[in-house]
Amino acid sequence: MPDKTKISKRIIERLSEYRTTLEEIDIHGNRNIYSHDLAKLCGVTAAQVRRDLMNIGFSGSSARGYDVPELLQNVTNFLGFGEERRMVLVGIGHLGRALLDFFVDRNPKLVLCAAFDVNEMRVNRVIHGVRCYPVSVMGEVVAEMQAQMGIITVPESAAQDVASTLVESGVTGLLNFAPVQLRVPSHVFVENLNISTVLEKVAYFAGQSAEKER
Amino acid sequence: MPDKTKISKRIIERLSEYRTTLEEIDIHGNRNIYSHDLAKLCGVTAAQVRRDLMNIGFSGSSARGYDVPELLQNVTNFLGFGEERRMVLVGIGHLGRALLDFFVDRNPKLVLCAAFDVNEMRVNRVIHGVRCYPVSVMGEVVAEMQAQMGIITVPESAAQDVASTLVESGVTGLLNFAPVQLRVPSHVFVENLNISTVLEKVAYFAGQSAEKER
Repeated sequence: MPDKTKISKRIIERLSEYRTTLEEIDIHGNRNIYSHDLAKLCGVTAAQVRRDLMNIGFSGSSARGYDVPELLQNVTNFLGFGEERRMVLVGIGHLGRALLDFFVDRNPKLVLCAAFDVNEMRVNRVIHGVRCYPVSVMGEVVAEMQAQMGIITVPESAAQDVASTLVESGVTGLLNFAPVQLRVPSHVFVENLNISTVLEKVAYFAGQSAEKER
Repeated sequence: MPDKTKISKRIIERLSEYRTTLEEIDIHGNRNIYSHDLAKLCGVTAAQVRRDLMNIGFSGSSARGYDVPELLQNVTNFLGFGEERRMVLVGIGHLGRALLDFFVDRNPKLVLCAAFDVNEMRVNRVIHGVRCYPVSVMGEVVAEMQAQMGIITVPESAAQDVASTLVESGVTGLLNFAPVQLRVPSHVFVENLNISTVLEKVAYFAGQSAEKER
């Protein structure tokens, strides 16, 4: 068995990418895939794919191509999607609404079970099957629903308070869209998604490409 | 001078993170920062910070702490934010609206100059100073505005056509939110932001943490 404590963030990202891609391939009825084809679809090298699969203890042969359903099952199991994960969303602005849209018909093991906002116009209703509550009841609802994950789309100034309340209520994983570094206990995993950072990266490489063209 | 062709995506992400953090520190009037403090604020190691800054040819001493304005200037210059970059947004749904909100009062060198949508209800108006056009005129507007970057928030089924039109009109960098692998010429940089992948990563580590607690 692989040692899960040594698994990095990057490998989990790649495994999730493989999983999504394999699901698509599986739906189209293809039984086998070569590591270099999977690699190409996911934008990595074939050596990387083989190394990652070795790391999670997958022993399928890549010589004749991997067996798609078997590999998909292995990656899914490794990622722990056998069990359901409950999460909540805090902030029902445009970004929050986009996320609510996003969850419709998605991964049935990742369940968005409640949403919260300070704005009374946005709560006490159901959007795509998700009940929206005022933030004042966030702590108790999160604890009661035993949510493990929280998605934070509130403004920068409110993000830390929201994170603290979520963590106190039992949340151990946060996806934070607010451009602020959250202070949380060490057992809590935080993924920051800073649109600025992503855009600056694209700007840099777009500029490099434009320079080459000159 | 550092060789820009060897600069990876990851270092650009980190430099952008340093830049944002240094800007904040600069605004608060702090003149110096130690590599380990900057590292902590950005969630990386001090060795990583020093290596990255060496890679971009920054020679400031870390023994007495870096000079904040000088370092900020160096990182900003390296990222090429001396010159303005023009970008367009395609898809004015909830996510597109969130991005339009986001651009208000942001990095003045990254200019969102137009938005597009197929839905007539969403176009022929101005949101936060950004003019919204029907997609039918996208090619000509993008070429005329000399936009280098495109942000794609349209549904999966429309994303490839949008990407192709943008690239034909001169775009060399794409930020793609649609869960599909875009086919583009090799001089075009594509950053895929797949919410599913990010959530699965958070789910994995949230689960690991919950297991440890048991």
